[in-house]
Amino acid sequence: MDLYYAGRIPRSIIPENQEFPMLSLSSRITPEFQYYLRNHFPYPVLPSNDWALKIEGLVHKPISISYQALFQCPQITLPVTMECAGNKRAYFQPKTKGDQWEQGAVSHALWTGVPLRTLLQIAGIMPDVKEVIFEGMDTGERADLPGMFSFARSLPVEKAMHPDTLIALCMNGKPIPYKHGYPARLIVPNWYGMASVKWLSRIVAVDHAFLGPFQSNDYVIYRSETDSQRRPVTLMKVNSVIAQPTDQAIMRRGRHFITGTAWSGHGIVNKVQISFDDGETWDHVLWIDSEEKYSWRRWRWEWEVSEPGTYSIRVKATDDKGNTQPLQADWNVKGYENNAIFQIQVYVD
Amino acid sequence: MDLYYAGRIPRSIIPENQEFPMLSLSSRITPEFQYYLRNHFPYPVLPSNDWALKIEGLVHKPISISYQALFQCPQITLPVTMECAGNKRAYFQPKTKGDQWEQGAVSHALWTGVPLRTLLQIAGIMPDVKEVIFEGMDTGERADLPGMFSFARSLPVEKAMHPDTLIALCMNGKPIPYKHGYPARLIVPNWYGMASVKWLSRIVAVDHAFLGPFQSNDYVIYRSETDSQRRPVTLMKVNSVIAQPTDQAIMRRGRHFITGTAWSGHGIVNKVQISFDDGETWDHVLWIDSEEKYSWRRWRWEWEVSEPGTYSIRVKATDDKGNTQPLQADWNVKGYENNAIFQIQVYVD
Repeated sequence: MDLYYAGRIPRSIIPENQEFPMLSLSSRITPEFQYYLRNHFPYPVLPSNDWALKIEGLVHKPISISYQALFQCPQITLPVTMECAGNKRAYFQPKTKGDQWEQGAVSHALWTGVPLRTLLQIAGIMPDVKEVIFEGMDTGERADLPGMFSFARSLPVEKAMHPDTLIALCMNGKPIPYKHGYPARLIVPNWYGMASVKWLSRIVAVDHAFLGPFQSNDYVIYRSETDSQRRPVTLMKVNSVIAQPTDQAIMRRGRHFITGTAWSGHGIVNKVQISFDDGETWDHVLWIDSEEKYSWRRWRWEWEVSEPGTYSIRVKATDDKGNTQPLQADWNVKGYENNAIFQIQVYVD
Repeated sequence: MDLYYAGRIPRSIIPENQEFPMLSLSSRITPEFQYYLRNHFPYPVLPSNDWALKIEGLVHKPISISYQALFQCPQITLPVTMECAGNKRAYFQPKTKGDQWEQGAVSHALWTGVPLRTLLQIAGIMPDVKEVIFEGMDTGERADLPGMFSFARSLPVEKAMHPDTLIALCMNGKPIPYKHGYPARLIVPNWYGMASVKWLSRIVAVDHAFLGPFQSNDYVIYRSETDSQRRPVTLMKVNSVIAQPTDQAIMRRGRHFITGTAWSGHGIVNKVQISFDDGETWDHVLWIDSEEKYSWRRWRWEWEVSEPGTYSIRVKATDDKGNTQPLQADWNVKGYENNAIFQIQVYVD
């Protein structure tokens, strides 16, 4: 263990939910021990030796692929920023139920795997398939429904067939750690993290909308119980965080680096602006990281401060599709997709 | 590393400030890897082999005691609950500057060491001594003053001569870990943690009030910059926390244990009450831990809930001197001693 060691921030014991300690952001890639954990159930007991990924449903030849066979398929590596849909839930007012994630339910890693498309083609996916369902080995109870459930989610067939939707076997160059989904994890770039099903066991092609509780009860945006304008959570909204300094920090006079990161599931972040006057005027930050598909970009701002006082700092990201962070969070019952411009306050003594 | 592993919650990288993950409270004694860290400076570089504790100032025979010699002095072991003066700072409204500690800047350990009184008597402390100063090996800069400082604090001579004020060498039965003050740490039971100086190098007996910045700038209670009613932070106020459930948790119908802990530097907590109706009526919790001097006491409440809904839970501790937690926090500029009754909200689906 290093002399200075910032581990994950626990939000729940079982299931084990812990966020990346954003204040320690240093590399673009999140080290595995700091990568955020978001589980819906206790960790699964994995089958001893005979795990195989099954592909079933509306396919001409249902298949069952061993771990070894998967490794022998052609693989690609993608950098992917993954954010939990509940990231920044703690900042909603009024508060919404569930784990009170602050700003660290987001991380970035390299994922290596087989394009799902390859496997669906081998199995002979039928033309009338509308959705593909992904089932994890993690099971348990829910507070709102009787019975036992597996964690399962679906994708529209177009997204399932996207060449960058992966059955990942490696994370940051090594077999995926157990807590991050070993032996195989679905990786859906640009989508919020609930889509990237861990501990995959089964893939089912269907011709209808999947209605499992993690699809139709959870991960749905609605503003009241009677809201008829419901929509599923899919692409990550443009978002940013300030890693350093932390809110309410006491600072010396002189030169400081303000640092953070920004991302968008709708495109590439090409503008991050910073304001010290409650949003009246905005300056462009400098990039630490280059533009890269699916990837957050760290940024910095050199701040020379000579006057003691209280300063507020706001940061706003914009992507290449013109999406930008709003002033106010789009409040919803389940507390998802909070991407409002965030403000910290610091003191110069 | 255990399957479920809740590490400390980082609040600042350098100095390394991290809180105990209260949601994981299980044993009375806090494991070393979870015990809260509160530093004022970067970790000190310790002298290689020739460390000795010096006792100087108004003593007849200044002494320098080696680590080995200290171990040969008669020692006692005390359980001590230690709370940072800034614990619960995050809950002040308006916010106050500094690390935004939530409820885990408090821990409990067994400390073994030589009563300081023994050493002061060996050195021949003079009758006109008013305070005893403790200097740590940790040094650095402050935001508000030019120059380099050591972390140093004083105690009134009466408290220094109290038989339970220790020069501790062991924590939970083993030599004090480096991050917790190796080779020797002052332990001042019942006082907030700033008094328990880590990495001790020097003890100086003086006949005047010590005015170092950690004595007269920090750890002072005042309500405005012009407040003339300033007083130093000393004894821990009566306080309590709810460890489980966490705020905004979603729970199933049925039976749950609500658990937490309570402590007071003014005496022994002999009453913890819980309210589900915004403080209209209060019930007495059950104790997990017995009464023990200087020690927090874990408590639990068995909660049977059959109706879905939103519930607020408040807990209030009272000690054997009649001190009880207030409804409102006693706001002060530096954000110390927040012991207001805390409320969480949970949802039963």
